[in-house]
Amino acid sequence: MTVNALTKNTKHLLKSLYMSGVHHFVVSPGSRSTPVALLLGELARNNKDVELYVDVDERSAGFFALGIAKTLREPVVLLGTSGTAITEYAPAAAEASISHVPLIILSTDRPAELQSNGAPQTLPQQNIFGSLTKKSVTFSLQDEHPDMTEYIDFMIQKMVREIMIVPRGTMQVNLPLRKPLIPQLDNQVPINVTPLVFDNYSSDFPVMRLDQSRVLILAGPNEGEDYQDILSQFARINHIPVIADVLSRARSKTTIYGIDALLNAGLVTEAYQPDLVIRFGATPVSERVLQWLKIKNIPVWHVDSHAGTDHSRHVSRAIAVTPAIFLKQVVVTNDFEFYQLWQNLNRVPRRITGEMSVPYVLDQVVASDQQIFVANSMAIRDMDDVFTGLKTQKIYANRGANGIDGVISTALGMSATTTQRSVLLVGDLTLFHDMNGLMMAKQYSLPLDIIVINNNGGGIFSFLPQSHADEYFETLFGTPLTLDISKIADLYDIPYVQLEDRNDLLTVLSTEVVGARLIEFKADRVKNVVDHQQFMGVTHE
Amino acid sequence: MTVNALTKNTKHLLKSLYMSGVHHFVVSPGSRSTPVALLLGELARNNKDVELYVDVDERSAGFFALGIAKTLREPVVLLGTSGTAITEYAPAAAEASISHVPLIILSTDRPAELQSNGAPQTLPQQNIFGSLTKKSVTFSLQDEHPDMTEYIDFMIQKMVREIMIVPRGTMQVNLPLRKPLIPQLDNQVPINVTPLVFDNYSSDFPVMRLDQSRVLILAGPNEGEDYQDILSQFARINHIPVIADVLSRARSKTTIYGIDALLNAGLVTEAYQPDLVIRFGATPVSERVLQWLKIKNIPVWHVDSHAGTDHSRHVSRAIAVTPAIFLKQVVVTNDFEFYQLWQNLNRVPRRITGEMSVPYVLDQVVASDQQIFVANSMAIRDMDDVFTGLKTQKIYANRGANGIDGVISTALGMSATTTQRSVLLVGDLTLFHDMNGLMMAKQYSLPLDIIVINNNGGGIFSFLPQSHADEYFETLFGTPLTLDISKIADLYDIPYVQLEDRNDLLTVLSTEVVGARLIEFKADRVKNVVDHQQFMGVTHE
Repeated sequence: MTVNALTKNTKHLLKSLYMSGVHHFVVSPGSRSTPVALLLGELARNNKDVELYVDVDERSAGFFALGIAKTLREPVVLLGTSGTAITEYAPAAAEASISHVPLIILSTDRPAELQSNGAPQTLPQQNIFGSLTKKSVTFSLQDEHPDMTEYIDFMIQKMVREIMIVPRGTMQVNLPLRKPLIPQLDNQVPINVTPLVFDNYSSDFPVMRLDQSRVLILAGPNEGEDYQDILSQFARINHIPVIADVLSRARSKTTIYGIDALLNAGLVTEAYQPDLVIRFGATPVSERVLQWLKIKNIPVWHVDSHAGTDHSRHVSRAIAVTPAIFLKQVVVTNDFEFYQLWQNLNRVPRRITGEMSVPYVLDQVVASDQQIFVANSMAIRDMDDVFTGLKTQKIYANRGANGIDGVISTALGMSATTTQRSVLLVGDLTLFHDMNGLMMAKQYSLPLDIIVINNNGGGIFSFLPQSHADEYFETLFGTPLTLDISKIADLYDIPYVQLEDRNDLLTVLSTEVVGARLIEFKADRVKNVVDHQQFMGVTHE
Repeated sequence: MTVNALTKNTKHLLKSLYMSGVHHFVVSPGSRSTPVALLLGELARNNKDVELYVDVDERSAGFFALGIAKTLREPVVLLGTSGTAITEYAPAAAEASISHVPLIILSTDRPAELQSNGAPQTLPQQNIFGSLTKKSVTFSLQDEHPDMTEYIDFMIQKMVREIMIVPRGTMQVNLPLRKPLIPQLDNQVPINVTPLVFDNYSSDFPVMRLDQSRVLILAGPNEGEDYQDILSQFARINHIPVIADVLSRARSKTTIYGIDALLNAGLVTEAYQPDLVIRFGATPVSERVLQWLKIKNIPVWHVDSHAGTDHSRHVSRAIAVTPAIFLKQVVVTNDFEFYQLWQNLNRVPRRITGEMSVPYVLDQVVASDQQIFVANSMAIRDMDDVFTGLKTQKIYANRGANGIDGVISTALGMSATTTQRSVLLVGDLTLFHDMNGLMMAKQYSLPLDIIVINNNGGGIFSFLPQSHADEYFETLFGTPLTLDISKIADLYDIPYVQLEDRNDLLTVLSTEVVGARLIEFKADRVKNVVDHQQFMGVTHE
């Protein structure tokens, strides 16, 4: 027995809504909404606690749903067909938005190829309610890729939770659909929606006892809170291994660093698998660690003020408190051997050569509590793999949108906050993108040591599949600019030094200077790939 | 000595930012931003803890500000001139938005008359960053009305607070400016910004001891929480007078009702003035009570999950906890005589005639815990003035956007949530707006008693200044539709009853019926004004 994408995804949509606490649906019939309406009928038939109302006038339907939602303090769904029908929900959406009543508008829509081409009942429906909706999303219910199904499950549960927390509000789910619009009714293929539990504490966070004995903490990027002491004590007392991202502000002698390389080297075998991972902070620098958790199906809870943000769609429980509050209230007794196994990973020998030498030596020569800004791309990955952070935890990067732009300026802004010298680790291509930013270093004599790893182009692309497209690679991805870093220094009146040997870094950084300084480390992109392959004695993917 | 609007408002803008915790400003110079830049120079000269940076390239400036904000975890201001300059902030705004760094963009703009007309450096700047900014506002710095100055103070403090709470984000303040652009430098007229304190508790709300002994609670509309028992006990033990809005779900024998009429009758004299008012919930039905607090300059704290929403711009402290949590933690010893004084206001004789009779009789004949939906305009005002709510607290209304539309449907939605009959109180004009909504009553046989106060038009306008514009009044505001309510009932197969006398209401409501029922009470708009004038023996404004 099979199920087609339209039927499967629509069922996932409706079941995710139902699992998120939606028990009332108000439908205004039409043609485009046919598959959703029919499967909603099936859902209501099979679940006694689902109430289905049909209201032919969408304006009235909007307010009717509002009345239910307002009285029960529960989210209520509106389902409408494409065209002006959807705009009829605007008055009720306005009232709901201002008075914080959770309304969910499912707006079925014409597919992309009928937009802006004179097709009947077709208007730009995406985010049509603007600021009247707190959240808005578009799903392609006829998309056959399994990621779409999982995305629907995850996003619906996440969005309904978001409109249910203060300030409560409304949301729109826009559903472009192609003909044929008839779903498979009474199809018996089971629909398994992974539940995503959201805990939100407006006042006290209670004591929480964990049954698991192989708990592991994954401390992700964190710029908002200093919880390293609490974490360190908690982990030591309870024997909790901690994988600490270079941006976590939580690395210490007992935290595991360089998880990406350890996983890549195949060192994290079955014996290391936890029975629960507690994730703090934002998306880790290591993509591989998230893949590992998902592939091995290891349960993950996300504990953070912004809990529930997980593009890997694997977090099963989101607890919206700060790590510090969580750690004070959680009780766990972990297996000591499991803890020791993980601790030993820090003793794996590393062979550090080439570009990786810079963060490696920096780790040793950096001043206590010195601020370091790290560019995206290769720089942050190398830092994550080799920088232990034993001397300083003040590591910054732009990991929101992960742009190559603005890095010089952001680092200069960081350096302007203290009289102690700061350090920037950056590649030549990233430096070029914000070369103008150096003017601030000159104008304000900002105390920043800019270490440029100059491999004449975009080093990270050599690790990606396109590196084998020989004909186009250098032009389109390698993009060598053959920058003369000393000339850049000259233009902005900034002192320039070239590192002949990686160990010169200590001498250079301890040489006094006023304002900024450009420190060049020349590297080679092809050699860099080999260096990384030999880092832990294995070949990269 | 005088100060012009541009100088005054710009100083208020900058001082409000400074008082909200902004100490770093990054300016990219230009022509349109001249007055803000000059007065910022003055602010920095006069305040040692203000850092002013000049970065000529706006793209770099955006990231430079981001670097400071990220490191210090403080809001940082960007000031830019009109045109593409503003769009250069987009990359930094994107990074800040996703990584929750508080950036504030002051975008100076061309005035309205230069928009979309080929003027140089002019583009649509309002909310130009869309969802990249958490909040966006436009201020007319050259507006001479004092409300604008107060609005700037209040909104800046409120918005900066909103971007500083989870999820943190960015905001844009758009500033259209006309020439001449030169402010008065070194003007000595003092700038007094009323501080607005925001308390936000992510975990525990501590015990709070109040010094004041004449504390009064104003319980506003509340659909989100049932705290009436806690409030009632707290008020009785601590002798706190409570003014309870009809939508507060908190009216009891000891709460004051009908504050609007009491104020209008001049009964709330100096002796009644509290030294602190604690406001719960949303905007009260009575506009007059907010005006009174403001005119008498009585300190007001707003305690609510949505604390800080106050269009009267008078709240001086916003405490973001639920009333229930607040009441558990607050300690106060109130003056008993003050308490008794207020209690006696409930004994003031009321002369209830005409339209007001309906909520008055309803108050007595309503079933225990029966749900009542109230239309906006006259219906909700009369309910607030005469309905004691001793039998039921389940009063609902659409007070977010206060629309005349959708009331029938919302009330039917409310009635669909319970098998007990519900009641709707509505005027003829509001009924007409959502007449289509009655179809749901027929289709689902919903148990709602719809009491229509039919005064053939818009009753509330007779109380407004336009009631004296005899030539246009009936056509433009009175709008008599001469609806035959019995014919509406006939169209939708709904039983119809006309109330001959207000006391018939008990008989009618206790007569069994299946589904909805239309109950008409005929009234007269001119007489209604007189009835209200004689309500407490005084003449309305």
